[in-house]
Amino acid sequence: MKALVYYGPHDIRYQDVPTPRPKEGEVLVHVRAVSICGSDLAAYKAVSSMRSPGLIMGHEFSGEIVQLGEGVDNLKVGNRVGVITNIYCGKCPDCLEGRTNVCDHRYIIGTTMKAGSYNGAMSEFVVAPAEKIMLLPDYVSFDEAALVEPLSISLRATKHVAHEVPSRAVAVLGVGPIGLMAIMCMKNLGSAKIVAIDLLQNRLELARKCGATDTILSGQDVPALIRQMTDNVGIDVVFDAAGVPSTVNTAIEIVRNGGSILMVGMASPTLEIAYKHAVSKELKLQASYMYTTEMKEGLQMIADTKLNVAQMITSRHPLSEGPEVFEELASGNTKEVKVILFPE
Amino acid sequence: MKALVYYGPHDIRYQDVPTPRPKEGEVLVHVRAVSICGSDLAAYKAVSSMRSPGLIMGHEFSGEIVQLGEGVDNLKVGNRVGVITNIYCGKCPDCLEGRTNVCDHRYIIGTTMKAGSYNGAMSEFVVAPAEKIMLLPDYVSFDEAALVEPLSISLRATKHVAHEVPSRAVAVLGVGPIGLMAIMCMKNLGSAKIVAIDLLQNRLELARKCGATDTILSGQDVPALIRQMTDNVGIDVVFDAAGVPSTVNTAIEIVRNGGSILMVGMASPTLEIAYKHAVSKELKLQASYMYTTEMKEGLQMIADTKLNVAQMITSRHPLSEGPEVFEELASGNTKEVKVILFPE
Repeated sequence: MKALVYYGPHDIRYQDVPTPRPKEGEVLVHVRAVSICGSDLAAYKAVSSMRSPGLIMGHEFSGEIVQLGEGVDNLKVGNRVGVITNIYCGKCPDCLEGRTNVCDHRYIIGTTMKAGSYNGAMSEFVVAPAEKIMLLPDYVSFDEAALVEPLSISLRATKHVAHEVPSRAVAVLGVGPIGLMAIMCMKNLGSAKIVAIDLLQNRLELARKCGATDTILSGQDVPALIRQMTDNVGIDVVFDAAGVPSTVNTAIEIVRNGGSILMVGMASPTLEIAYKHAVSKELKLQASYMYTTEMKEGLQMIADTKLNVAQMITSRHPLSEGPEVFEELASGNTKEVKVILFPE
Repeated sequence: MKALVYYGPHDIRYQDVPTPRPKEGEVLVHVRAVSICGSDLAAYKAVSSMRSPGLIMGHEFSGEIVQLGEGVDNLKVGNRVGVITNIYCGKCPDCLEGRTNVCDHRYIIGTTMKAGSYNGAMSEFVVAPAEKIMLLPDYVSFDEAALVEPLSISLRATKHVAHEVPSRAVAVLGVGPIGLMAIMCMKNLGSAKIVAIDLLQNRLELARKCGATDTILSGQDVPALIRQMTDNVGIDVVFDAAGVPSTVNTAIEIVRNGGSILMVGMASPTLEIAYKHAVSKELKLQASYMYTTEMKEGLQMIADTKLNVAQMITSRHPLSEGPEVFEELASGNTKEVKVILFPE
């Protein structure tokens, strides 16, 4: 089969590789849509501990079942499916207490974890455990289904503060796909004001379409504008999709006393924060990481038309164009937001 | 009257000052016990924005009412009392939503806030609003009542995570008075294991008396010892009473995946944290600041003998010895934990 194989920074090759075969309890999925995640792009830009050379990336995808491994009797060839990409151990203390998102022994399809690499969906076919399959309702498109995974990230984060959002003011720092999904989730939770903050005007326009009530272009005096917008009180919940020193400290500055910051982005391994300020404002800094049950919940939300994830797809390309697409996304001049690849 | 007046770092003088008079709605309290807080000591060691020269410090205290201002008819001369030191405005958005602890317009007895200085209890007499008075049950001593204020700090912090503590493992970084109170509160909440961590052996011994089940002297390999103690899982809730880079990052290291860190100490204005590590462990970093309702609750807990705060009092001195006592505490060689001063 054809696949995009990751060899290292700025080196992804479209080439022939052996077609995988489903083992007992697994199915073979013909990929119909796979979207590019910021973490895929990060590995394209620089060495990442989560992408080893030789890996086929792609953990946001959907497709059709084309072959059943032994013992799989609850699925059929032809099923339209999404795939839960977290293959956790189910036995460790974290898993046994429901924290499957931080299982130390997990594989994640399309990535390299401590446990090892697991080839992903930037290819014609991908193997997945049958128990990770989600059947797609007919009226959910393959493109939408590919976006269930990133949606689940934002959904989990906003669930952590679900009771703090209704009728309140929220802000999202960084409105790439995760930030845009966060806006949609916050809107669903009933926030009264949603302020989108980003470096790029075109993303702010998309943020408005996704539900932002106000936008601020980074570089303006963000704290002063937020004070104006909130009668000097500040933002109730700030969602940080970036996780760099400037966004984390902006979050600490613009959140109200007693407010919450959702830490989702983590672009900086370490960073200096205004610690005393955060403590004396009595803030809650709540991290959110991956998903546990949220992929199923996100798919249901899309099926129920509670949110429109497709509007952030800015282009679709055949898999063969993958190398050029990655180079364009890495250039820093792109207008792309979410890009879908599909095998020819 | 006699008072200890703060003139600046290493300059506290025992001298005569005018006795204050209670205005309408206020009472005059004859101080019977006032304890020295870490923040008082910090101002003694170095310039503090919260202690202006000329201030009489002292916000942890108790006494007897000796005079009633006009219009005060619910109290009597002779009442044994504690005093809620937070004189918030009651009108701002923070106050109106119950966040009186972060009211921007508040005075705190014995400190200098944005609103101004308010003389405290390191003196023979102190004035307080009648509405801030708490009547003491006969069987609560003046010394115990003085410790209600620091107790309220730890009590509020542990309330933030009350449902995460029962039958769980907790750790306290820094077991000065706030850390010791935290141990007592965590024990009350039913934690199964309480690990005290400190630089000083005598404090660890006191921590055991207060309810710690395990102790670790700083400088040992704390993360390795914690892994041993918790079957490699980590601590469920870590209470950081210091707030310096080493304690905050130790907290991030020893807390389990999905666990909580209580940020109470804030000795470092800014600090560098292992941010990505904190996010990928999906931690909650919950700040706790001062108290709102917790002074009344803390007094009730003492009255109900749910905890024994008096065991952390290591010495009692007449107010006139204040200058020497502060110098001793600031020396860094002290064995003192909590010191009570009293007017002769």
